[in-house]
Amino acid sequence: MSYTGLNMSRRIRRTPYTQKVIEAGVTGFTVVNHMLLPKAFKASIEEDYWHLSKNAQIWDVSCQRQVQVTGPDAEKLVQSMSPRPIKNMPVGMCYYLPLIDENAGIINDPVLLKLSNEKYWISVADSDVLLWAKGLAVGGNLNVNIIEPDVYPLAIQGPKSEELMAKVFGEKINKLKFFHFGIFDFLGTKQLIARSGYSKQDGFEVYLKGFNLGSKLWDTIWSAGKTYNISPGCPNLIDRIEAGLLSYGNEFTLDDNPFECGFDAYCKDLSHDFIGKEALLKIKSDGIQKKIKGVTFEGASTPPCTIPFPVYSNNRLQIGNITSGIYSPNLKTNIGLSMIDRDYWDDGQEVIVLTPDNLERKGRICSLPFNYN
Amino acid sequence: MSYTGLNMSRRIRRTPYTQKVIEAGVTGFTVVNHMLLPKAFKASIEEDYWHLSKNAQIWDVSCQRQVQVTGPDAEKLVQSMSPRPIKNMPVGMCYYLPLIDENAGIINDPVLLKLSNEKYWISVADSDVLLWAKGLAVGGNLNVNIIEPDVYPLAIQGPKSEELMAKVFGEKINKLKFFHFGIFDFLGTKQLIARSGYSKQDGFEVYLKGFNLGSKLWDTIWSAGKTYNISPGCPNLIDRIEAGLLSYGNEFTLDDNPFECGFDAYCKDLSHDFIGKEALLKIKSDGIQKKIKGVTFEGASTPPCTIPFPVYSNNRLQIGNITSGIYSPNLKTNIGLSMIDRDYWDDGQEVIVLTPDNLERKGRICSLPFNYN
Repeated sequence: MSYTGLNMSRRIRRTPYTQKVIEAGVTGFTVVNHMLLPKAFKASIEEDYWHLSKNAQIWDVSCQRQVQVTGPDAEKLVQSMSPRPIKNMPVGMCYYLPLIDENAGIINDPVLLKLSNEKYWISVADSDVLLWAKGLAVGGNLNVNIIEPDVYPLAIQGPKSEELMAKVFGEKINKLKFFHFGIFDFLGTKQLIARSGYSKQDGFEVYLKGFNLGSKLWDTIWSAGKTYNISPGCPNLIDRIEAGLLSYGNEFTLDDNPFECGFDAYCKDLSHDFIGKEALLKIKSDGIQKKIKGVTFEGASTPPCTIPFPVYSNNRLQIGNITSGIYSPNLKTNIGLSMIDRDYWDDGQEVIVLTPDNLERKGRICSLPFNYN
Repeated sequence: MSYTGLNMSRRIRRTPYTQKVIEAGVTGFTVVNHMLLPKAFKASIEEDYWHLSKNAQIWDVSCQRQVQVTGPDAEKLVQSMSPRPIKNMPVGMCYYLPLIDENAGIINDPVLLKLSNEKYWISVADSDVLLWAKGLAVGGNLNVNIIEPDVYPLAIQGPKSEELMAKVFGEKINKLKFFHFGIFDFLGTKQLIARSGYSKQDGFEVYLKGFNLGSKLWDTIWSAGKTYNISPGCPNLIDRIEAGLLSYGNEFTLDDNPFECGFDAYCKDLSHDFIGKEALLKIKSDGIQKKIKGVTFEGASTPPCTIPFPVYSNNRLQIGNITSGIYSPNLKTNIGLSMIDRDYWDDGQEVIVLTPDNLERKGRICSLPFNYN
């Protein structure tokens, strides 16, 4: 695979932690929101998976860029972007917030943080929500200010992350509930820390304000983490797929709607006004033709899913595409995520998965998350 | 540099030509608009530069995604996005069209193609103009339809490209003027071909409609190109910098305005309505504090410009950052592009460039394009 080099330049933005990540032995990156995201270190994905499940890890997730919306119309704008109601959202909470366009196609699936009644951060996956929000605001003459602030999330993940974070930021950390955030001191600065992260482990995300504080934050947590066997890490593909955590651009795009992605829980109360409401109500009433499901499939460890794996019915109809897939050491089988056609999406349905090693593998449909105990 | 691997997945989209590019020996990619762009083949950048200046090359530039705007308000929307007037733009032409936001910060610097009075393609650099345009349309209730069509540009560049293209598409090609396009037959389909490209050589871009035709188009041009010593290529850094062709995200971002980028020619007639008009008029009247200039700097070939090179005045003030830089075999010196502070931007100004090999190199400011003859 000599063709997988990544050419670096200012356009592929470095983070405050990039130099630390290189020193820590990163072996590959990807690009999210025009910014570097580490994808692998010296450990194999499976070694990393076991480490993550038992210790603490430090992840550079600065590519989770913030879209800061402030001003009198901030709530109005943010609410217009999503079918999930935010009217009763308290300050200090995080909401998973699917954003849709006028056709109910998904623009992004960020986490929303409410900092005050007139200040929100939208922590985005890989698309320029900044431009979407600014376009809506300029086009609709809204009284808001929208910027990408000088904020660079650093994630601490794993079962030891609470102890580690309490050691650095004090015992107030222990009281933080899942998807809540608080303000903590770091070297005399006030920093936002949420209990959240892109793994199924316990974890935290420090929304570091101030690029120039990055090295100090990394070093401080790294030093304190030695007791907890800290290692550098990044979103782990086995952990993510087992948990059924979706990746925008992989499992779903602008061509898919929230019901197809299993976001029904965020589309229950559709009484407020939002972009795409009419389209979403029609989809709800018509029903959907495909849905994201889990697929287990047999045989030796699958090759990497760099190109989607076609999924077939036993009568050789293509009924889906696995867009993220890997061997699960817990389930002792291969697992993947795929949009599956409605006639075949029931749990237990037998399917055939074609992997790039040209093997046809027997598989079964299941619900998400995978049942890994 | 073992850390520069790029992890592949569906999110980093492949193009209709990716498999061909791999077979042709690509050694590195970058990511533009969530899509693969080849960055290097077996030849060195300098070998590639000489080849490009004498022969024909085939480039996968599918990442130049199209934002298709159609409908009664298409012209109104497109015009609202740019200070450059498009009122008198004829069908069949391409316009370089800086797009700005409400603060006159640059959103993108695409090429606009006018297909009819109610149909435009915006061929974009690296930012989601699709979301910006959709936001403006939804927010402003415009009667337009905006999609990313099934179109994948393939560039043929170099002095032999005209002969090659005429061989494949007929002599009508010879009549195409620079920045004009025509419709040509390919295997019974109608395809748009423009005389354009991201190099200072003669060249063409086939805006291939239909992903599934990609291999056939590549193979057809490749076969016909053997006579012209065709090679696989990609935007060449030496050629691009010599020509003063800017790269969005490298030389300029949302933080920069059109005057700072030297786009004065597109900001002469500001009588029409557009987003950012007030801000741009204020900038025009106040004047600017920095501007993109060329820098020549001495010594052996500079290391790659993966992180901007600081530029200092002789009295050690930082006055700029070289964001793209390389050794020019024509000028027999290193050349770079940098925003330079107003007090130091005159041609001939002496400067000092600090390169990552820790060398302080003597340099001089110059106008663009570089004088390479």
